[in-house]
Amino acid sequence: MSVIFDRVALIGLGLIAGSMAHAMREGGLAREITGFARSAATRDTAREIGLCDRVCDSVTDAVTDADLIVLAVPVGAMGDVAARIAPHLKPGAIITDVGSVKQDVIDTVGPHLPAHVHFIPGHPLAGTEHSGPKAGFASLFRNRWWLLTPLPDTDPDALDRLNRLLVAMGAKTDRMEAGHHDLVLAVTSHAPHLIAYTMVGVADHLRRVTDEEVIQYSAAGFRDFTRIAASDPTMWRDVFLHNREATLDILGRFTEELFMLQRAIRMGDGQQLHDYFTRTRAIRRGIIDAGQDTDAPDFGRTPGARGS
Amino acid sequence: MSVIFDRVALIGLGLIAGSMAHAMREGGLAREITGFARSAATRDTAREIGLCDRVCDSVTDAVTDADLIVLAVPVGAMGDVAARIAPHLKPGAIITDVGSVKQDVIDTVGPHLPAHVHFIPGHPLAGTEHSGPKAGFASLFRNRWWLLTPLPDTDPDALDRLNRLLVAMGAKTDRMEAGHHDLVLAVTSHAPHLIAYTMVGVADHLRRVTDEEVIQYSAAGFRDFTRIAASDPTMWRDVFLHNREATLDILGRFTEELFMLQRAIRMGDGQQLHDYFTRTRAIRRGIIDAGQDTDAPDFGRTPGARGS
Repeated sequence: MSVIFDRVALIGLGLIAGSMAHAMREGGLAREITGFARSAATRDTAREIGLCDRVCDSVTDAVTDADLIVLAVPVGAMGDVAARIAPHLKPGAIITDVGSVKQDVIDTVGPHLPAHVHFIPGHPLAGTEHSGPKAGFASLFRNRWWLLTPLPDTDPDALDRLNRLLVAMGAKTDRMEAGHHDLVLAVTSHAPHLIAYTMVGVADHLRRVTDEEVIQYSAAGFRDFTRIAASDPTMWRDVFLHNREATLDILGRFTEELFMLQRAIRMGDGQQLHDYFTRTRAIRRGIIDAGQDTDAPDFGRTPGARGS
Repeated sequence: MSVIFDRVALIGLGLIAGSMAHAMREGGLAREITGFARSAATRDTAREIGLCDRVCDSVTDAVTDADLIVLAVPVGAMGDVAARIAPHLKPGAIITDVGSVKQDVIDTVGPHLPAHVHFIPGHPLAGTEHSGPKAGFASLFRNRWWLLTPLPDTDPDALDRLNRLLVAMGAKTDRMEAGHHDLVLAVTSHAPHLIAYTMVGVADHLRRVTDEEVIQYSAAGFRDFTRIAASDPTMWRDVFLHNREATLDILGRFTEELFMLQRAIRMGDGQQLHDYFTRTRAIRRGIIDAGQDTDAPDFGRTPGARGS
């Protein structure tokens, strides 16, 4: 037991908040965990499974006297939640969020918050294709990155305290500028998700191939795509709408590149295809090499990054 | 021990042939396994690890007196191999292949073969991102589909015998018309692979994002893509060149669909995105449901398919 926060309020009770509740309890990191979800059904489920110490019927109750408030709602809902809780925040409280987009959250949440609280945006790079209050589990963040995008004037003590919680839940943390975060994630997560959704949609439309065939003969490639494409629709709608510029930029590059390869197939240019596939194979090797390094204390630090 | 073939010749000693060797030995399914690979280094490695009973320096030696010959080379090399082995095939021998494309293999291999052998094209839907003689393992085919695309005049006894071998190695088998196979695989495997290769290539080109960031912060989406994009470059070059029409057809549909979603992002049409993602999620559910059914004896049979 090493309590880091007296009272933690989880707003939104999905996969991430649920996993935080499990992880904080396992580590004895919070004295009390309150929770709120907009949907009464979600609140009922959370109560049934005892997800939090107290599930509140109003977001105001949930955040009152909380030392840490975690906004774990879809990115598009963050601004409204911030406006509603702002008058009820305890001086010195830390507010963080777990949204997959950071600049938009800063723009929509920041202006609502009083000067006497610490807003530290964050993003755990962890998840599964499941969602809802029952989807969480304590080890979700173990050895996964949790990126923080603090504003320039962030209080170092508040940042350190939040950071200690994340590390105690098993996460590796790093800090990044919000706009840069959004570009990195557009490449590594947002565009790949849209592409996976698209490919699964194409399969669904192809009437000459039966659904049974698509499903039964889904080899590695497509099976992985369907897993990605099963992620929460509301969360991902908001990601794309709120990281629009970076996502469209990456998708534009992607289609240029795809057209080049399509042309190589059409023209029978085997050398170009082979060269391309050889290059992409090397990138995978880099990921595996990086993965093998996880035990090393300096793993994952971009030169110059202030790893925590 | 239940020997199905006296002598099996594996031509090409990569992941698939190596896994067949392990699986056949584990089950005692062949009295002798011979092997040949074009590269002397591959033959040396195969000898070192004792992959086959006999690794031959000439493809002619490998196939002489074989009851079953398995062509496990890239699709683009199948025709040449067939031409070289044709004069040395024992009457009544069964020739199969493991290529990911079937009509092209039938067109290039078939004409070389003498009338006194049985040619039964096949395709195991199994693999990993690794390749080479050391990549194989006995359980690769366990509970995976092995599609056969026999020609209309195929000898039923030969088909049954090959089928028994595949089932004994753990595979589930099904039969399909070659052209239809190529379309189904274009949707479920070939187009997804090209898309994964492309996305990994885009990440590599994006200089504002460092390689370290792409690698370290590769969330689920991108990480799955890189695994797919690490597959053998020669094999995949040949797949695309030899299943050209179906692959280009699917890629055309894919880009139409992607442009529609890109436009929805640009226009801020959240409803369209949400609807689309909800539909793709249902497809994933179908795969999971199908997976839960694997124990049922009729799993995976398209109505009317002659499952074996």
